[in-house]
Amino acid sequence: MLNFELYNPTNLVFGKGQIEKLTSLVPQNSKILLAYGGGSIFKNGIHEQVIKNLKGFEIVEFGGIEPNPHYETLMKAVDVIKAEKIDFILAVGGGSVIDGVKFMSAAVHFQGNPIDILQKRLLIKENTVPFGTVLTLPATGSEMNSGSVVTIKATQEKLAFGGSALFPKFSICDPTVITSLPKRQIQNGVVDAYTHVLEQYLTYPHEGMLQDRIAEGILQTLIEVGPGVVENPADYALASNFMWSCTMALNGLIQKGVPSDWATHMIGHELTALYGIDHARTLAIIGPNLYKVMFETKKEKLAQYGKRVFNLSGTENEVAAEAIEKTVAFFHTMGMKTLLSENAENFEKTADFIVDRFEKRGWKALGEKQNITLERVKEIVIMSY
Amino acid sequence: MLNFELYNPTNLVFGKGQIEKLTSLVPQNSKILLAYGGGSIFKNGIHEQVIKNLKGFEIVEFGGIEPNPHYETLMKAVDVIKAEKIDFILAVGGGSVIDGVKFMSAAVHFQGNPIDILQKRLLIKENTVPFGTVLTLPATGSEMNSGSVVTIKATQEKLAFGGSALFPKFSICDPTVITSLPKRQIQNGVVDAYTHVLEQYLTYPHEGMLQDRIAEGILQTLIEVGPGVVENPADYALASNFMWSCTMALNGLIQKGVPSDWATHMIGHELTALYGIDHARTLAIIGPNLYKVMFETKKEKLAQYGKRVFNLSGTENEVAAEAIEKTVAFFHTMGMKTLLSENAENFEKTADFIVDRFEKRGWKALGEKQNITLERVKEIVIMSY
Repeated sequence: MLNFELYNPTNLVFGKGQIEKLTSLVPQNSKILLAYGGGSIFKNGIHEQVIKNLKGFEIVEFGGIEPNPHYETLMKAVDVIKAEKIDFILAVGGGSVIDGVKFMSAAVHFQGNPIDILQKRLLIKENTVPFGTVLTLPATGSEMNSGSVVTIKATQEKLAFGGSALFPKFSICDPTVITSLPKRQIQNGVVDAYTHVLEQYLTYPHEGMLQDRIAEGILQTLIEVGPGVVENPADYALASNFMWSCTMALNGLIQKGVPSDWATHMIGHELTALYGIDHARTLAIIGPNLYKVMFETKKEKLAQYGKRVFNLSGTENEVAAEAIEKTVAFFHTMGMKTLLSENAENFEKTADFIVDRFEKRGWKALGEKQNITLERVKEIVIMSY
Repeated sequence: MLNFELYNPTNLVFGKGQIEKLTSLVPQNSKILLAYGGGSIFKNGIHEQVIKNLKGFEIVEFGGIEPNPHYETLMKAVDVIKAEKIDFILAVGGGSVIDGVKFMSAAVHFQGNPIDILQKRLLIKENTVPFGTVLTLPATGSEMNSGSVVTIKATQEKLAFGGSALFPKFSICDPTVITSLPKRQIQNGVVDAYTHVLEQYLTYPHEGMLQDRIAEGILQTLIEVGPGVVENPADYALASNFMWSCTMALNGLIQKGVPSDWATHMIGHELTALYGIDHARTLAIIGPNLYKVMFETKKEKLAQYGKRVFNLSGTENEVAAEAIEKTVAFFHTMGMKTLLSENAENFEKTADFIVDRFEKRGWKALGEKQNITLERVKEIVIMSY
């Protein structure tokens, strides 16, 4: 097992009606920036609940944080935080709003040009504005980790950053929020969380036996609840396991002591930046083809995945190959269309375009073995057409 | 799923050579109480390593914390902490030393008689002395939780307490420490961790689907590594998964949102208090008999356990019953003797004695359904003779 440090100070407050604890979770006498997205929190009543449970606090609102939040939008929020002397930020939304708030938290006191946080992928270890979250859309795990992804609109770049000072102080996760979500967003959440696990699991055999078991447990749970929760989001058993699995898929636990891949995300981010395809759908397009192209280096873990998660039997090659097909079938069950042609138009130059961008960033290879060369990236993307 | 809060701010520093990080983990300029047990840390070189990595810190040593640490001993340490104006306590040892340090941490600034912390099972939420740990014996999970068990020698009572202010600031877990452990202690560690999981898992069917999967993953890992690690403690893959499983078995994660039992521990503690039997061995004696006596209320989870962990098949009753036998067999493989008569002499009045003590404490029933009445406790203990 690789050496690791497990440190996660977020207080995760999970369950029905937990929003009532906001009053005691937000530091007393804080002036709060209430950050949110496109306004769905007004329709589903969450804005009203938040305001009700923040009686007595001074609140400034900042709405309009878009999916794949834009650096340009977030810098406007940073100006508001400085002008209004905000002490605490409350993100009310899904991964995009929370990721956006992490950028604000890091940028306010940043010495220099905050665009460097993204373009130089800086580690943020101090001088942040404290923040909490009320999660309205399970998927990204951002509510219990210290990572974030922000898009620079001007250059169409979707870039990741993070650091130990960027854990939420608390996150309120009430599974009943998903009853008001469009079916598409629930489907996306399941596939997003599922792929988060695969990125940390489908690598090569290693000593992280317990991490593998936990990863497999999250996958099994998502397979068990995914189809049902899309149809019956009001079923609390399904909703709560869905939400909890999304958090556990990316709160840092299963990556401790083991290698991880993340190439599917790196390539997928480009599809979102280029065509605006939903993040989860880019993962469903790229992931299975990446496993096919990298079959030789991933087949041992693919076979373990096939045996333990799908109960498959056969030779290593057979089980590994069938596990990829089972994954695609699960994604289809979750409403994904796994070809690029089903998700975008005029996509014929995508592979060249992505390779060109990776080259410009100086990226030579991706993946847990750094053996997903740009040639292979091209092959994966073309296979996805 | 039941509502829960998951908050665990311990920084777990896991792996080979991590003891070198002590210098930066202990707060600068602290005056440290170095707390340890019977002196094995002098034989295995850990004392030397600790001192080497605390160069420049003022250190006061306090040794002699016994297994099942005594209130009476710990109060002597509390006097030292006050007299020497200690800022930080470093526990170097196993669960007993760490539990002992938690009591010291809580007792130093306690208003009133510190024995109340134990006898009134007080929740400790503030005013503690900060502490860290260097784990030398994997078993209890105390290195990453906020609970503790202390024995009052005068009354032969073994009592649990805890609270959110009692998480270690950091815990250094280097799996190579187990190479110097006696075989018996490794066997005990495996069975202790295994039973910790069973206490949180073998209850009744509930909505905690992911928690069940994670619990099963820890059990599978312990079954997989247990026999091997006893024979080859220098095998790092085995040692690291053993150590990590022990932490994960009782760091709070798998109990979130689900019912838990703990009756095996409550009864087992009495056997230790009465006869000085190793903690883990009391669990191996009591656990399986408790599952037999409570078969009707636990059989659904016993059957799930049998199917998923031992790959058993058959009717629910058959699989549940066989799962208990498999558990006993695993305990035997781990060197446990599962009858009280194999572990103590003059034990014939044990059942009456334990029931009498429970009655005096006002305990009417134990377990996740509070249906393990004192009559059933008696039945379980007699079945263990």
